[in-house]
Amino acid sequence: MNEVETVSSLRSHGGLQGVYRHQSAATGTEMAFSVFVPDHEPGARLPVVWYLSGLTCTHANVTEKGEYRATCSDLGLIFVAPDTSPRGEGVADDPAYDMGQGAGFYVDATETPWTPHFRMRSYIEAELPALIAAQFPADMNRQGITGHSMGGHGALTIALRNPERFRSVSAFAPIVAPSQVPWGEKALGGYLGPDRAKWREYDAVALIEDGARVPELLVDQGEADTFLAEQLRPALLREACDTAGIDLTLRMQPGYDHSYYFISTFMADHLKWHAERLRAS
Amino acid sequence: MNEVETVSSLRSHGGLQGVYRHQSAATGTEMAFSVFVPDHEPGARLPVVWYLSGLTCTHANVTEKGEYRATCSDLGLIFVAPDTSPRGEGVADDPAYDMGQGAGFYVDATETPWTPHFRMRSYIEAELPALIAAQFPADMNRQGITGHSMGGHGALTIALRNPERFRSVSAFAPIVAPSQVPWGEKALGGYLGPDRAKWREYDAVALIEDGARVPELLVDQGEADTFLAEQLRPALLREACDTAGIDLTLRMQPGYDHSYYFISTFMADHLKWHAERLRAS
Repeated sequence: MNEVETVSSLRSHGGLQGVYRHQSAATGTEMAFSVFVPDHEPGARLPVVWYLSGLTCTHANVTEKGEYRATCSDLGLIFVAPDTSPRGEGVADDPAYDMGQGAGFYVDATETPWTPHFRMRSYIEAELPALIAAQFPADMNRQGITGHSMGGHGALTIALRNPERFRSVSAFAPIVAPSQVPWGEKALGGYLGPDRAKWREYDAVALIEDGARVPELLVDQGEADTFLAEQLRPALLREACDTAGIDLTLRMQPGYDHSYYFISTFMADHLKWHAERLRAS
Repeated sequence: MNEVETVSSLRSHGGLQGVYRHQSAATGTEMAFSVFVPDHEPGARLPVVWYLSGLTCTHANVTEKGEYRATCSDLGLIFVAPDTSPRGEGVADDPAYDMGQGAGFYVDATETPWTPHFRMRSYIEAELPALIAAQFPADMNRQGITGHSMGGHGALTIALRNPERFRSVSAFAPIVAPSQVPWGEKALGGYLGPDRAKWREYDAVALIEDGARVPELLVDQGEADTFLAEQLRPALLREACDTAGIDLTLRMQPGYDHSYYFISTFMADHLKWHAERLRAS
């Protein structure tokens, strides 16, 4: 590859699990991401599922614990897992786990000290897709997107802002209304400033209220998730979707928490759901 | 539980993934292990598959990366993952990764400084099975055993010494003849002393040469495993099994390495292989 350095490329589940790094123009930092590519016919281009990770995570968490490779190989899906923020010594940070490095919230920051590097919206919406299209056997006309927690927020908001790009959208325990919960108020206030009108394009429920539409959504949420009542609040998404006529499949999963033990359990269901929509003509 | 402390118990793949710790009489230390128990009828007892881990690992590696839970739930198998050595401040260690803590080699050490705590054979063969039988819904008449690398060595040798106990035995990239490879010569020499006759009960190929028998074995080995030629040497097992009339299914897997990206790929195959034998009447 020209601009992308291969950190590792290991055979797994009948495909190649790669980890890559590159110098990002959007963030002005080196960024790492992982891509799983199932074995395929020479010249074939495969549908792509994006997976956006949650607070504190890098690409590595889902790559190691997500249990997606067997199903992606069965269904012929490329799986892309980006990092959650810019990182490094010259990059602003916060001692809390829910702000700064590892907590980019998929926004383009407008406030100091975050502005020069915290441009995860541009990175995920523009720079990384161009790179994936150029460097991997990806059919960019067949993209789906999912994510967990903060990354579920990312998946929902990116899809709602770009409905023509994504044929399928799902989320695991997403932050559905960051403007209305502590994690989101802190992050959006910090990255975007106090004017809450500017937060709305980074809030799935607000985007739907303001007219953004996707035809359908799949969301799994553990009932034993300790963040459920205060930070995640899927009922707000239920209400917004019902009002807007969006077909939301919201599955409350008894006993499941917020961890990868939850995510991995339902990963295959989500990938099958995406594949049905991505493989439709 | 009486003597066992629950560190965590999380719902995953239609079962409970627990991590536990207890004071071990065999090692004289606190030991941790993980157990996955699929949902089951009240009062039912389920077959057990033991998984012994490799150098540097604890119970956590396979618990996080092994991708065994979905298949164990489908097949109704309990999955037990012990640690690989005693650990702690009062326990002897070696600065190298392949000796001391994280490298117990499933032996009862006879040499100083290892003797007081490095008694992993007694721990895995006697103490932990009694605890599992007493504290979990396990059918101890239906046990299988597998493992990876050093843990594959453990699985093979423990099964060969206790053929009446295990209905099924498999391994991922096992050290098949530790007496003939650098890892094993260092570890067995260190734990057991220079008399190589004492090593033979901890060497699968030597055990078979000395008359130990199991009816059949399943072994997967990656062809891109960097330890293949020097440390693992499956041809030695092939030769010993052929001579002894043991039905060895040795699958060389092109492109696969020594990591959990390899193990997780073939985990479901191994669990199905065990289940066929454990569920037979």
